[in-house]
Amino acid sequence: MRTVFWDYENDSIKMIDQRLLPFDFIIAEFDDYRDVAQAIKDMYVRGAPAIGATAAFAMALAAQQSKSTQKDNLLRDLDTAAKILNDARPTAVNLSWAIQRQMSTASDDSFSDVDSVRSLLIQKAQQIADDDVELNRRMGFNGAELISDGDTILHHCNTGALATVDWGTALGVVYAAQEQKKSIHVLVDETRPRLQGSRLTAWELQQRNISFDLIVDNAAGHFMRTGQVDIVLVGSDRTVANGDVANKIGTYKLAVIAKENGIPFYPVVPTSTVDLDLDNGDLIPIEERPADEVLMAIDRPIAPSGITARNPAFDVTPHRYVTGIVTEAGIVYPPFRKNLRIAVESERSRGS
Amino acid sequence: MRTVFWDYENDSIKMIDQRLLPFDFIIAEFDDYRDVAQAIKDMYVRGAPAIGATAAFAMALAAQQSKSTQKDNLLRDLDTAAKILNDARPTAVNLSWAIQRQMSTASDDSFSDVDSVRSLLIQKAQQIADDDVELNRRMGFNGAELISDGDTILHHCNTGALATVDWGTALGVVYAAQEQKKSIHVLVDETRPRLQGSRLTAWELQQRNISFDLIVDNAAGHFMRTGQVDIVLVGSDRTVANGDVANKIGTYKLAVIAKENGIPFYPVVPTSTVDLDLDNGDLIPIEERPADEVLMAIDRPIAPSGITARNPAFDVTPHRYVTGIVTEAGIVYPPFRKNLRIAVESERSRGS
Repeated sequence: MRTVFWDYENDSIKMIDQRLLPFDFIIAEFDDYRDVAQAIKDMYVRGAPAIGATAAFAMALAAQQSKSTQKDNLLRDLDTAAKILNDARPTAVNLSWAIQRQMSTASDDSFSDVDSVRSLLIQKAQQIADDDVELNRRMGFNGAELISDGDTILHHCNTGALATVDWGTALGVVYAAQEQKKSIHVLVDETRPRLQGSRLTAWELQQRNISFDLIVDNAAGHFMRTGQVDIVLVGSDRTVANGDVANKIGTYKLAVIAKENGIPFYPVVPTSTVDLDLDNGDLIPIEERPADEVLMAIDRPIAPSGITARNPAFDVTPHRYVTGIVTEAGIVYPPFRKNLRIAVESERSRGS
Repeated sequence: MRTVFWDYENDSIKMIDQRLLPFDFIIAEFDDYRDVAQAIKDMYVRGAPAIGATAAFAMALAAQQSKSTQKDNLLRDLDTAAKILNDARPTAVNLSWAIQRQMSTASDDSFSDVDSVRSLLIQKAQQIADDDVELNRRMGFNGAELISDGDTILHHCNTGALATVDWGTALGVVYAAQEQKKSIHVLVDETRPRLQGSRLTAWELQQRNISFDLIVDNAAGHFMRTGQVDIVLVGSDRTVANGDVANKIGTYKLAVIAKENGIPFYPVVPTSTVDLDLDNGDLIPIEERPADEVLMAIDRPIAPSGITARNPAFDVTPHRYVTGIVTEAGIVYPPFRKNLRIAVESERSRGS
C-alpha cells in the first residue's frame, strides 16, 4: 500500500494517518484540498517526498473542486490553492516543487479545455507518485554500495515507505541492502518530539524483518563514540547549493559526532529535494512547531503545566560534516557546489 | 524539604518519590535497607549526591535492623548491606563512597558498643546530608562566577535540589546566579528516556520562578549552532583522574557540539563524585537499564510491541571537550590530571 494515492473511484485523495501509527492503521480520505493542506500541517503525512506527492494530488483535487468553465478562472483557483498548500509547511522544498510542476502543467498553452487540464493534473500527480517509487529504488541501490555485510547503520526520524510514496530514501538504502542479502543491523533514533523513529521506522523495520534496536536520541553519541556504528544515514527536507542539509531536528548533532569519530555521514536525497536557488543552509526557513509537541509524548503530558517550550522541527547540517550525498543520479561527493548541480541537472535533463 | 532525610520519630528513611513528579508529590517511607536499595534501582531517588546520602542513611538503617549484640556480628550484617546497596546502581561513585565512609565509621575501634555504632551511623549519615547542602551552595557560588547577566544556560537531566540532598550541583550554579540577581534563561533538555529535565528540572525552575524553555534533546545542537546558548552546565555521576566525565546519556553530544561552536562546557562536580582510582573514562562501568524505559514515555508505549531497545543510562565525555570542572573547592582547569587531584585532596584534608 502507498502512503498517499488517488482513489479513481471516488475522485479523492487517500492517505495513511501516520499520527496514529503504530497503534492504529487508518486510511483517511480527502475531497477538499484545504483539508489536505491542514493534514500536511497536522502531519497525517510527512517526509519531503510524500509531502510533494500529496501536494501534487491536492492540486488535482483543487482543479476538480473549481467550478470554473474558463481556463483563466481555473488557473486563478489553482493559484489560490497553490498559496494555501505552500503555506502548510515551510521547510521541505518538495512541497513548492510539486506545486510549481502542477502550475506549469495547468498553464501549458496546448491545453485550453478545463476538463483536459483537470485530468492532466491527476495524470501528472500520478506520475510524480510513480516516479517517486521508481527513483527511490534506484537511489536505494546507489546507496547500498556504501553498506558492507555486518554493518550497523544509525538512522534518524523516518525515511522509509511512509516518508515517501513507497520504498523510502535513507531507509530505502537499508531495504536495498536487505535485498542484496547483506546482514545489517539498524540503531533507530526514537526522534523526539514526534517519535517518527519509535512509531514509524520501528514499525517498518519490524514488518520487513530487519534487525534493529530502538534507542533514545541521547544515546546515539554513545554508540558512535564506542565504535558500535559503521555509517549514519538520514533523509533531508531541503538540501541547498553548497551542500548544507536541512533535516529533522537532531540531525546536526549526529553529523558532528559522526565526523568526530570518523564515521561516514550520508544524507539520502532525491534531486527533487535539492534547492539550487538557495546558496547555503542559513537561508532555509526552519519551521517552529507548536510547543505542545514538546510538552507531551503522544498526547500525554510529560512536564508541569503552565511552562513554555521551544520546538524547532528541523536543523541545518553544514556541508563540512557531510561525507557524501546519495541521490537517484548517484552518490555526490565534495565539492558539493559543483557536483550537486551536475547531479540535479543530469536528472532534470533525463526528464524525470 | 530535603530529597531524602532520616525521620527521627519513626527511625525510618523518607524520600520524595521522584518517579511521580511533577504530577504527584508523594513522600515514601522505608524501614528496610533492602527496600532502599530497590528504591535506588527503581529511581525513587537519583542524582549522584542524593544517592550517596541515601546510601549513608540506608547503612544506618541496616545497623538498626541488625539484631546483633556483638560488634563483629554487626559489622558482618553491615557488610552484607554494603554489598546489596553497592549493587543498586553501578555508575555513580557517591554510592560506594558513602557506603565506604559508613563502613569505616562502624569499624572504628573507639566504638565497641553496638548501640553507639548504631547512633553514630545515623549521625554520620546526617552529617553527609548536611555537608552536601552546604558544599552545594559553596560550589554553586563558585560556578556562578561563570554566569554573566543575560546568559542563556543549556542544562541536561536534573541536577537540582532533587538530585542532591538540597540546592543542587549544575542547577545550584543557576540558583546562585539567581541569588546574585543576574538575569538568566535556561534551555532545559527534556532528557529521555526518564525525562528528568521535563519532569524534575522544569518543576524546580518553575517553583523558583526562573525563566526557562523546555526543549527536546534533539534541539540542543540547533540552539548552540545558531548562537542561542552562552554556556552548558551539567552534573556528573563519576569524574575520573584524567578529567573524563560520566554523566546522563546525551551529555557527550552536548560537550562535542559546544566545543565545535566555541561554547564553554562545565560539569559541576562535588569532589565526592571524583574517582581518582580510575585513570580514564573507559574504565567507568556504564549501567544499561531496562529496555522498557525506551519503549515507553512515563509508562505509555511509544513503539510497536515486540521490539528490542538498547538503554545505556550514561555516557562518557572525554576531558578534551571539558572547559573546566566546577567543584566546591573552586573551578578546576586543565591539566585535569594534576589539578583535579589537588582540588580533591584539599577538600579531603579540609575534612568535609
